[in-house]
Amino acid sequence: MLEDKILNYLKKHEEGYVSGEELSCELGVSRTAVWKHIENLREEGYDIEAFPHLGYKVISIPDRLTEVELKWQLKTDIIARKIYSYKETASTNDTAYNLAIHGEKEGSVVIAESQTAGRGRMGRKWASPKSKGAYFSIILRPDILPKDVSSITLFSALSVAKTIREMTCLPAFIKWPNDVLVNNQKICGILTEMNAETDKINFVIIGIGININTRKDLLPKGATSILEEHGGAEISRVDVARNIFKNLDKYYKLFKGGFIGEIIKEYKEFSNFLGTRVQVAHHDTKIEGYAIDVDKDGALILRMDSGLNKRVLAGDVLMLR
Amino acid sequence: MLEDKILNYLKKHEEGYVSGEELSCELGVSRTAVWKHIENLREEGYDIEAFPHLGYKVISIPDRLTEVELKWQLKTDIIARKIYSYKETASTNDTAYNLAIHGEKEGSVVIAESQTAGRGRMGRKWASPKSKGAYFSIILRPDILPKDVSSITLFSALSVAKTIREMTCLPAFIKWPNDVLVNNQKICGILTEMNAETDKINFVIIGIGININTRKDLLPKGATSILEEHGGAEISRVDVARNIFKNLDKYYKLFKGGFIGEIIKEYKEFSNFLGTRVQVAHHDTKIEGYAIDVDKDGALILRMDSGLNKRVLAGDVLMLR
Repeated sequence: MLEDKILNYLKKHEEGYVSGEELSCELGVSRTAVWKHIENLREEGYDIEAFPHLGYKVISIPDRLTEVELKWQLKTDIIARKIYSYKETASTNDTAYNLAIHGEKEGSVVIAESQTAGRGRMGRKWASPKSKGAYFSIILRPDILPKDVSSITLFSALSVAKTIREMTCLPAFIKWPNDVLVNNQKICGILTEMNAETDKINFVIIGIGININTRKDLLPKGATSILEEHGGAEISRVDVARNIFKNLDKYYKLFKGGFIGEIIKEYKEFSNFLGTRVQVAHHDTKIEGYAIDVDKDGALILRMDSGLNKRVLAGDVLMLR
Repeated sequence: MLEDKILNYLKKHEEGYVSGEELSCELGVSRTAVWKHIENLREEGYDIEAFPHLGYKVISIPDRLTEVELKWQLKTDIIARKIYSYKETASTNDTAYNLAIHGEKEGSVVIAESQTAGRGRMGRKWASPKSKGAYFSIILRPDILPKDVSSITLFSALSVAKTIREMTCLPAFIKWPNDVLVNNQKICGILTEMNAETDKINFVIIGIGININTRKDLLPKGATSILEEHGGAEISRVDVARNIFKNLDKYYKLFKGGFIGEIIKEYKEFSNFLGTRVQVAHHDTKIEGYAIDVDKDGALILRMDSGLNKRVLAGDVLMLR
């Protein structure tokens, strides 16, 4: 799109001014066309001033999850090489799944300002209020067996928790396997889905829903947002998403390189459940014990009251006092 | 469809004759309509004779993989409760996948006389010549973890091998994990695909392609058919498919009941690779050893030359002399 090209050119020269003539030459369109597209950008929320005898200059940029904003000087090798951006979609996981099944490459991202049918784990709903959070799904094609996919879930949670700590200093923690909590309230949910043969993953979709500038009254009970925990100050959703992409890129490369041990080590440093007594519910069964470790397969190790250890592969963790 | 109703009624009274009047009363249509639909059935290959003063009688039935033929007196609890029958489809697995993603119930079958883009394991092609084999896919929704899906692959192969032995006395064997061979040539291939979360299977598609009345010149090298191994005599494809449904139904219920041990025991009795020296190729690596067992997770146990055992979870087995 021509708007994107104009924007990228203006951003590249953000310290100075760019004349309409320069833009018109550079992009091969008339000066009237340039002016028209600048108008379109203004309508989208870009504050672009026109200084007489100097030219155009970008003053401020709206916090929109568009491809051009998200990819601006983003230096990742795999994640977000391509971004499909939507104002609204039913579920970014479904959209990404559909792209992947038709051959979409590894690393592509589907992102939306809001979802009308956001899904969480185990078929639960995920609230996705408009323009206040970020909801995105990433397509990966790792050369692993289906049983090894849980590591991907772990480093996804780690990437989000780490991003929140780096950007806000909020005490973001992970609850096994992949909830991200701040002050014991859920700030991010992750839904990992896959399409696989018995012994070959075709693709994995990591769906991440993160509450950024969302006010508490729009969130379900037990959920919070960066804004709420951060004294009501809004932060750039574009920056949050970009930093998550960077962290995901880093950990995915570690994962591909076989450095699972390093990932698990960092994951455990971000975990708030280790050393505490927990109840794990899966379907109709509930078991209780002390959470003592997460092994290299991503399983939660419980020390039961009998003194024996138990490996837990699935379930919802409730931390007991 | 009215043709199906007429057919079912005639079949139910196959020992005698059914008058046009009786059919017309029973189905609430005119005798002319009955006659017209009988004509349609004749065009589809049904040999229905009209005896003066007695009525209609089915003399012979074409060997077509239609819902009405496949379900005729089929007593299964789960498998083939619903059948989607196509003359031709790109891939029955793709069609079934699409149905499943939109909520299709467990047990439904997609079957086709031929496939234009039949797929095998690891993205390989599967030849599906017209009207001589059976190509079908079954939707299952087992309440298991992704790592446990390999058992489904095993009992699918077992169901096919057992059906071939029961119907033909041919020495059908299984090559790990799920090829069915007769005289060391492939007679059936199985492609198990799944859609899952990290800790929850949404659905599994078992795709089965079996060469029944296919002549060797239509098959790739290394493949054979029941007809070729059976002295050139055609057998009913409808009966083969129905018997596979029955066996799948039996083993799936055992699987759901937790009787994995029984399934593995029978699987091993049908295995031709145990006790032999094999090479297992997976991606770029090849390992060699004696195949000594299949464990309850469906893994192949190799006794290596070092004397140590190795669990193999994926790969192609080549039997060495």
